[in-house]
Amino acid sequence: MSSVDLNADLGEAYGCWRLGDDAAMMEVVTSANIACGGHAGDPETMFQTTQKARENKVVIGAHPGFDDKQGFGRRRLPLTVGEIERLVATQISALMGAAALARATVAYVKLHGALANWAAEDEGIAQANVNAIRAVSPDLAVLAISGSAFDLCSRRNGLRTYSEIFADRAYDERGLLVSRSKPNAMITDENAVVERLLAFFQTGKMQTADRGAVSLRADSICIHGDTPNAHLTALSLRQALEKGGVTITPFVN
Amino acid sequence: MSSVDLNADLGEAYGCWRLGDDAAMMEVVTSANIACGGHAGDPETMFQTTQKARENKVVIGAHPGFDDKQGFGRRRLPLTVGEIERLVATQISALMGAAALARATVAYVKLHGALANWAAEDEGIAQANVNAIRAVSPDLAVLAISGSAFDLCSRRNGLRTYSEIFADRAYDERGLLVSRSKPNAMITDENAVVERLLAFFQTGKMQTADRGAVSLRADSICIHGDTPNAHLTALSLRQALEKGGVTITPFVN
Amino acid sequence: MSSVDLNADLGEAYGCWRLGDDAAMMEVVTSANIACGGHAGDPETMFQTTQKARENKVVIGAHPGFDDKQGFGRRRLPLTVGEIERLVATQISALMGAAALARATVAYVKLHGALANWAAEDEGIAQANVNAIRAVSPDLAVLAISGSAFDLCSRRNGLRTYSEIFADRAYDERGLLVSRSKPNAMITDENAVVERLLAFFQTGKMQTADRGAVSLRADSICIHGDTPNAHLTALSLRQALEKGGVTITPFVN
Amino acid sequence: MSSVDLNADLGEAYGCWRLGDDAAMMEVVTSANIACGGHAGDPETMFQTTQKARENKVVIGAHPGFDDKQGFGRRRLPLTVGEIERLVATQISALMGAAALARATVAYVKLHGALANWAAEDEGIAQANVNAIRAVSPDLAVLAISGSAFDLCSRRNGLRTYSEIFADRAYDERGLLVSRSKPNAMITDENAVVERLLAFFQTGKMQTADRGAVSLRADSICIHGDTPNAHLTALSLRQALEKGGVTITPFVN
Repeated sequence: MSSVDLNADLGEAYGCWRLGDDAAMMEVVTSANIACGGHAGDPETMFQTTQKARENKVVIGAHPGFDDKQGFGRRRLPLTVGEIERLVATQISALMGAAALARATVAYVKLHGALANWAAEDEGIAQANVNAIRAVSPDLAVLAISGSAFDLCSRRNGLRTYSEIFADRAYDERGLLVSRSKPNAMITDENAVVERLLAFFQTGKMQTADRGAVSLRADSICIHGDTPNAHLTALSLRQALEKGGVTITPFVN
Repeated sequence: MSSVDLNADLGEAYGCWRLGDDAAMMEVVTSANIACGGHAGDPETMFQTTQKARENKVVIGAHPGFDDKQGFGRRRLPLTVGEIERLVATQISALMGAAALARATVAYVKLHGALANWAAEDEGIAQANVNAIRAVSPDLAVLAISGSAFDLCSRRNGLRTYSEIFADRAYDERGLLVSRSKPNAMITDENAVVERLLAFFQTGKMQTADRGAVSLRADSICIHGDTPNAHLTALSLRQALEKGGVTITPFVN
Repeated sequence: MSSVDLNADLGEAYGCWRLGDDAAMMEVVTSANIACGGHAGDPETMFQTTQKARENKVVIGAHPGFDDKQGFGRRRLPLTVGEIERLVATQISALMGAAALARATVAYVKLHGALANWAAEDEGIAQANVNAIRAVSPDLAVLAISGSAFDLCSRRNGLRTYSEIFADRAYDERGLLVSRSKPNAMITDENAVVERLLAFFQTGKMQTADRGAVSLRADSICIHGDTPNAHLTALSLRQALEKGGVTITPFVN
Repeated sequence: MSSVDLNADLGEAYGCWRLGDDAAMMEVVTSANIACGGHAGDPETMFQTTQKARENKVVIGAHPGFDDKQGFGRRRLPLTVGEIERLVATQISALMGAAALARATVAYVKLHGALANWAAEDEGIAQANVNAIRAVSPDLAVLAISGSAFDLCSRRNGLRTYSEIFADRAYDERGLLVSRSKPNAMITDENAVVERLLAFFQTGKMQTADRGAVSLRADSICIHGDTPNAHLTALSLRQALEKGGVTITPFVN
């Protein structure tokens, strides 16, 4: 019997601006990556979102990103590794402060946007993030892109590390994401998405873009939350997985 | 034998902008109130300043203020008590994250500017700040304006509370600061400043503006750090106190 | 034959965050109050919105507000009158720069949120805004709340001034808005909204909260844009007015 | 008889933070590049600095840079050329708004920091800046690094373009700056700085790093303002140039 976690980015509001339907998504996912005031979020949002997550029994992850609301953390800013350590440590901690007020606990860290992509491909940036997390609390788990530099670095440094996959992204023969610049990077057919995932959970091997199969770690599936009706797509995926015998449960308890 | 702490606001830089001479002040004071990224400070500044404080064996306090760099936290922003709780909890925690990277510890909280003044006079604002501090960590001490609403509220809530006085401000018969709008609010003569303080530490009574005397708590003296040569004035005060038999030592250890 | 302008707040996005459906609203209103980067807006938003307004032949107004995105300009910040002059002059000008790139023209100024409310009731704040507008360009028109301090101040200073009314707000016997704190401040029935407006355009007198009638200036009707389906409500109001013989046309050309 | 302008970056304050001694520098330079609220500056600073410049008869230039106060505009942010157009147009215009209140005029544009360096070496970025300037006002002059891509692009587009040189930087045989990464990039001896400049103004040829000579345009000399005693170094350079027969006068009137 397989089990997997579903995670989504939540709390990505700023002031009166909202992104996605957090309340609906809270009922589908088991883990919430909550923005920490860098690419999105502010003290109110962090508090409200950690509080809602606690009430919904959704596990809370800190979701640090570049301090760039105008670019939503999607632009790679030229920070040094030291600056990244300080950026990430202060953001995780800020969320912990809001969570403390909400009587909630931050259980893990998942990087956001351009910072996540950089740490996925660059050893030094991966290490900077690991350093920040470990300094804040060695009890924090890490949720990393399966097989990425950050995933490997986090494991090597002894952090409790979990790997996430993407339901609608193609994988290559090494178990890594096919670049979005390639034509076959995305799986757009919803049935194909579900079939591939169910096959993966039955066999332990992910079908690759070139029709092969590869072993990869998959503790969690990343759910996109910022498109209209994202929660409906997510719910439909969750139900298909459960119907196929996969238990949906948080990767940390 | 009397003893007292000397505290100053440090780490009030932002990016490449500096305020005061932190390195010089670190050699004079025993406690540093370090900006938390609201009215001043950023991840780099928080890290560098907590690191320097640790190296200089200066006790570290979080110094939260309104999220208003343009106004340096000196403007009273119309936040609700709930918003103040979230503001203060996230700021203290952010500094803790930077301090963790610097292998330093945040020992206490002192409020900044307009937030401090509001909490000094308003019971509800005082309670919001107490709530935030207690949620982040009940081990945090509080440094409050002697006799202020925040001082009393913090004690009543069971936080380890210490009271600060101002070397150059006049006191009234209740032990409270004479308003700056009054003509005799400031003691401008340096000798008078030292004499009054020494008399206070010998007798336990502070001379008041109307030539009376009043008992007040004084665990720390607040040193201004943002004027040119502030560290020289501070050093001269420290030496005068020591010469007068007052030991300069942190209020928390 | 009566005619009136319809105005709405547009361009109140920030980075990837959106507020309301600007494209739909552009097809209903004749004047667009465009955020200037203070309470909302950034260079991209200002450019895109002025460009869309030009394409839709919607007249462009600058919509300055407090520099407070977290509070969306709805909190009254304690600025001096001089600071307000500088705030407003730089915001209007910034929008002009974006409009210049979009080959569009800023024709008027309407104040936003807490700044608008302050200028509506305080003579000094009204004058500061007038000073800012006149310094930037004496050719700028002003759109002010009918009968407010800002409306009167702008006229007294010789600026081309137009007055706006609110379709769903009650008026008192002086032609001023009934405070929102009063129970009868809002007209919630849509038919009543239309009937009152049509009666006003036929008779020139606005029905008051206490069943009387008052003359007031009404060059434009303010349309709310930030609720879901706001553009449908707006369209339905526009059609009802046109059916009732009121021509919808910009107040400036 | 030769003449040249002296320019310096001024108004690079933010809130209560100051950078350099603007008042002293205003008495030495003939042109002031004034920050526009991106890398530094805010409405108050822009107003105060344009006002002081007018009083001192110093010509005013807009000094736009990346919207990145924490990095002081020294980090190259990954903006598109379109985004740079909007950034620069809104910043120049914002300064114009502040200048209008101060009854002062913005006469030219000089780019700041990482934006200036990018435009100096990249044709597309240079063109984006030219587009922004021309859209705001074709009457604005441009002050560009002598021989840079931006300098050439601005001339080719028909803007009134002036070229600046650096007193303490070495030049190569093409008349371009020797990269700072090279050992001989800086001229550290003050006498050598003056001698080279005087020789240049007498012969029209700049001595190069490899002891040759090259013709280059030099309408203005850039003076650094952010080091302690920068104004004394600047004054001493000005006096040496005047003693050597060079008239110090603005490049635009």
